[in-house]
Amino acid sequence: MLLPQLRSAVLDANLELVRRGLVLYTFGNASGIDRERGLVAIKPSGVPYDELRPEHMVITDLSGKIVEGTLRPSSDLPTHLVLYRAFPNVGGIAHTHSEHATAWAQARKAIPCLGTTHADYFHGPVPVTEPMTDAEIASAYEANTGEVIVRAVTPERAMAVPAVLVANHGPFAWGPDPAAAAHNAVILEAVARMAWITFGINSTAQQVQKALHDKHYLRKHGANAYYGQK
Amino acid sequence: MLLPQLRSAVLDANLELVRRGLVLYTFGNASGIDRERGLVAIKPSGVPYDELRPEHMVITDLSGKIVEGTLRPSSDLPTHLVLYRAFPNVGGIAHTHSEHATAWAQARKAIPCLGTTHADYFHGPVPVTEPMTDAEIASAYEANTGEVIVRAVTPERAMAVPAVLVANHGPFAWGPDPAAAAHNAVILEAVARMAWITFGINSTAQQVQKALHDKHYLRKHGANAYYGQK
Amino acid sequence: MLLPQLRSAVLDANLELVRRGLVLYTFGNASGIDRERGLVAIKPSGVPYDELRPEHMVITDLSGKIVEGTLRPSSDLPTHLVLYRAFPNVGGIAHTHSEHATAWAQARKAIPCLGTTHADYFHGPVPVTEPMTDAEIASAYEANTGEVIVRAVTPERAMAVPAVLVANHGPFAWGPDPAAAAHNAVILEAVARMAWITFGINSTAQQVQKALHDKHYLRKHGANAYYGQK
Amino acid sequence: MLLPQLRSAVLDANLELVRRGLVLYTFGNASGIDRERGLVAIKPSGVPYDELRPEHMVITDLSGKIVEGTLRPSSDLPTHLVLYRAFPNVGGIAHTHSEHATAWAQARKAIPCLGTTHADYFHGPVPVTEPMTDAEIASAYEANTGEVIVRAVTPERAMAVPAVLVANHGPFAWGPDPAAAAHNAVILEAVARMAWITFGINSTAQQVQKALHDKHYLRKHGANAYYGQK
Repeated sequence: MLLPQLRSAVLDANLELVRRGLVLYTFGNASGIDRERGLVAIKPSGVPYDELRPEHMVITDLSGKIVEGTLRPSSDLPTHLVLYRAFPNVGGIAHTHSEHATAWAQARKAIPCLGTTHADYFHGPVPVTEPMTDAEIASAYEANTGEVIVRAVTPERAMAVPAVLVANHGPFAWGPDPAAAAHNAVILEAVARMAWITFGINSTAQQVQKALHDKHYLRKHGANAYYGQK
Repeated sequence: MLLPQLRSAVLDANLELVRRGLVLYTFGNASGIDRERGLVAIKPSGVPYDELRPEHMVITDLSGKIVEGTLRPSSDLPTHLVLYRAFPNVGGIAHTHSEHATAWAQARKAIPCLGTTHADYFHGPVPVTEPMTDAEIASAYEANTGEVIVRAVTPERAMAVPAVLVANHGPFAWGPDPAAAAHNAVILEAVARMAWITFGINSTAQQVQKALHDKHYLRKHGANAYYGQK
Repeated sequence: MLLPQLRSAVLDANLELVRRGLVLYTFGNASGIDRERGLVAIKPSGVPYDELRPEHMVITDLSGKIVEGTLRPSSDLPTHLVLYRAFPNVGGIAHTHSEHATAWAQARKAIPCLGTTHADYFHGPVPVTEPMTDAEIASAYEANTGEVIVRAVTPERAMAVPAVLVANHGPFAWGPDPAAAAHNAVILEAVARMAWITFGINSTAQQVQKALHDKHYLRKHGANAYYGQK
Repeated sequence: MLLPQLRSAVLDANLELVRRGLVLYTFGNASGIDRERGLVAIKPSGVPYDELRPEHMVITDLSGKIVEGTLRPSSDLPTHLVLYRAFPNVGGIAHTHSEHATAWAQARKAIPCLGTTHADYFHGPVPVTEPMTDAEIASAYEANTGEVIVRAVTPERAMAVPAVLVANHGPFAWGPDPAAAAHNAVILEAVARMAWITFGINSTAQQVQKALHDKHYLRKHGANAYYGQK
C-alpha cells in the first residue's frame, strides 16, 4: 500500500474535524500531499467517518488520476489539486461546512482581524472569494472553486493566511501538513464565531491595530517566535 | 406483528432525531409508510424515547384507523396522513420542534437558500405556511395543519424541497423513507441555524445564484449525480 | 427522617436542572411542599450537586422555621415560601439562572407566546416582574422577591402560566409537584432561547393568534386534553 | 520538588478551565503564588492539557527568574507577575480566550452589570483596558499587558472586581487562590454570554440599580454574607 504514513495523517486530520464538531454527517474532507512523489491522499466521498480506515484514502496524482484506491475520491478533489499546484508550501488541506465560518461565507464577508486569537494564526483578514460566474459553475466547477480561491488568497499570502471563505459555500483551510490544516480549520471556526458575537455586541468594532496584529503573529511564527516549547 | 422492518425503521428515525439534539423530552415524532399495503407506522404519543421499542409503534391505515397497537398514536398523526395522501413519493415524515427551524417558523419567514449546504438538500427556499384560520384551528386542527403544508409546498415540489415550516409551530421534513426524513430534519436544523447567523453578520445577505443552486442540488440528486459511492 | 418521598422528589428535581444544563456550579434550587403537613423540603445552600443526598434537604414550615436538617436552606427559601402561601395549587418550585431565561429577565421583557412550544406549557406571555424598590431590597429581600412575583403573576394565573422572570435576576418556575416545576423550568429555557432567535430573524415577529394559543394549551391541559397516554 | 501543593492547585485550576469549555487546544493559562516565599507556579507554554502533571508547572520568582522547572513558562508569565506585584491580595490568576468574554474584549466594551449573576461576583462593570500603544506592544509586550490591566482595574478595586477584559485580546480573572481565579473565569464567561443575549433582546437594557447590585454582592462577600454553609 502506497504512502501509509500520509494515509494515516489524512485520516487523523479528517477525524479531528469530527472530534471538534466541524462536521455533520459526511460533510467535509481533508487531504495531504507527498511533494517528492507528487501524490495526494484524500478522503473518499460520502463514507461515514466511523468506518474510515487508512486504506480507504484515495491516492491520486496532481492531475487527479487515481493511482491507488477503489473508492471514489471526495468530489472536491479538483479544488484541492488546484491549491496544491498553486501553493507550493501547502502540505495538507481541510474543507468543512463548519457553521460559523460557513455563515461568513454565506454573508460574503471577509472575517476582519478583531483580536489576538485571530492574529495568532491568520496574518490579516480571512478573505472571501468573488462569486463564481455561471460559466465557471457550469464546467469544471470544483477546479474553478480552486481558481477563485487562488485569486482571493494569492500564492504570496497562502502561508500567512492559511484559510479562505468560498462565497456561498464554506471554508477551506491548509497548512504545512494535514494536521495543521485541520488545526487551522478548527481555529477558523472559533475565530468566525467570536467575530459574529463581537459584531453583535458592537456593530462598529474595529480591526486590531497593526502593531498588535504583527506582534501576536510573530510571537508564534517565524525566526523570532517564542511561544511553546521549541 | 405487522411490518417489523418498517417499525424498526420508524423507531430508528425517531432515535436519530434524539441523537442529533433535535428533540426535548417527548417532542417530535417520525413515521413511515408501506405504500403497497397502505399502512403507516408512527411513534406513540408522549412515551419517553429511551423506553421506545419497535412494538410500541402504532400501525394505522391512511384514514387513521388503528390496525395494530395498544398505545395512542402521536397526536400529529392526522398531519402525517394528509402528507402521505398528497405526496405519493414520500415514504417517511419527521416532525420536530428543533430550535432554529422552529424560530424561523415562529418568525414566519421562509429560509432562503444562502449557500451550498442548503442547495445540496433543498432545491429552493424552505417555505413557511400561511397562518391557519380560526376555523381551521377549531376543527380537525392536525389534519388542517397538513392541508396548509400541502398548499405551501405543492405536490410537484415535495421531493425537491422535502421540508416546510408550519407558521408559529415548527418544521416537518420528509423523504423516500423514514431515515431520509430524519436526515432531512437534521440538515434543515443546521441550515436554519446557519441562515440565522448569516443574517446576523450581513442583514442584506443574498440568495445564491441559480447556477450554483442547481449545480449543488444536481451533484447529489438525479441522473447525473456524482456525490458519494453510488 | 421526615418526608422521605418528598426529599427524593426535591433532590430529583434539583438534579434534573443540572442534567438539562440549566445550572452552573451551585446556582439554582428546587423545593417541594407537603400540603397536608404544611412542610417544605428545599435544597441546602451552596452544596455541590454531586454530593447532594435526600438527607441533605432541609425541612421547614411555611414560616421558614427549620423542622429538620443541619444545613442552611437555600438563601432563596423565603421567596419559595411566599409563593407556596400565595399559590395554593403549587406543589414544587424551581429557580435557576438558566442563561436565556435570565437574559430575558435582564432585558426586563416578558416572553411573548411566539409558537406552539410556548403555548403547550404557558397560557400567555411569561411575565417579568416590576423592579423592586430600594426599600424592598434593603429589608426582607428574598421574601419581597416573592411578593413581586405574586403581583406579576397573580394567584388566578399561577397554574396557567407556571413561570415568571424576576427583573434583573432570573426565572422561577413551578408546578403541581417538584418534577413538574423542574420540567417547566427546562421548557422555559428552551422557549426563551427560541424567542431570542425568533426576534433575531424577524424583529417584528408577532404573538400567535389566540385560537392557536388556546388550541395547543388545551390539547395538553384540562378536561379535553388528548396528548400523551392518559 | 518545591511547592507541591501550589503546583497541584495550579494544575487543577488549569484543568477546571478545560472542563468548563473555556479553552481550545493549549490556549489559556493559570498560575498561583506563595506570598510568603514570593514564588509563582504557572503552566508551561504550549503543552497539551491532558499531558500536564504537577511537576510540569514552572516555578519562578516575582521577577520571572525560573527557580525550578525545565519547561518554558507560559509566554503570558510577565502579565501574571505584574498583577501579583500590583494586587497584593491576589493568590491566583487565570487567562483564557473564552469566546464570549473575548468577544466583549474584541468589541472594546466593558460588561455592564445587568443582573444578579454578575452582581454576585463582580461589584461593578467588568472593565475593558485601553488599547496599548505601539511602543507598549513593541517592547515588553506581556509586562505592558499587565500594566494596562492595573490601570483599568486599580489595586483598590482588584478584589471587588476580580476580572478584566484586555482590549482586542481576552479576559484575565483572579482571586484569593488558583481555584477562585478559575471559578471567576468561568462565571465571567457565563456573564459575558448572558449580557450578549440580553442586549440582543433589548438593545437599551439598563444596569441593575445600585441597591440590588450591593445586596447581591454583599450576600456573598464580606462580614454579613449569608450564602452557602459558612
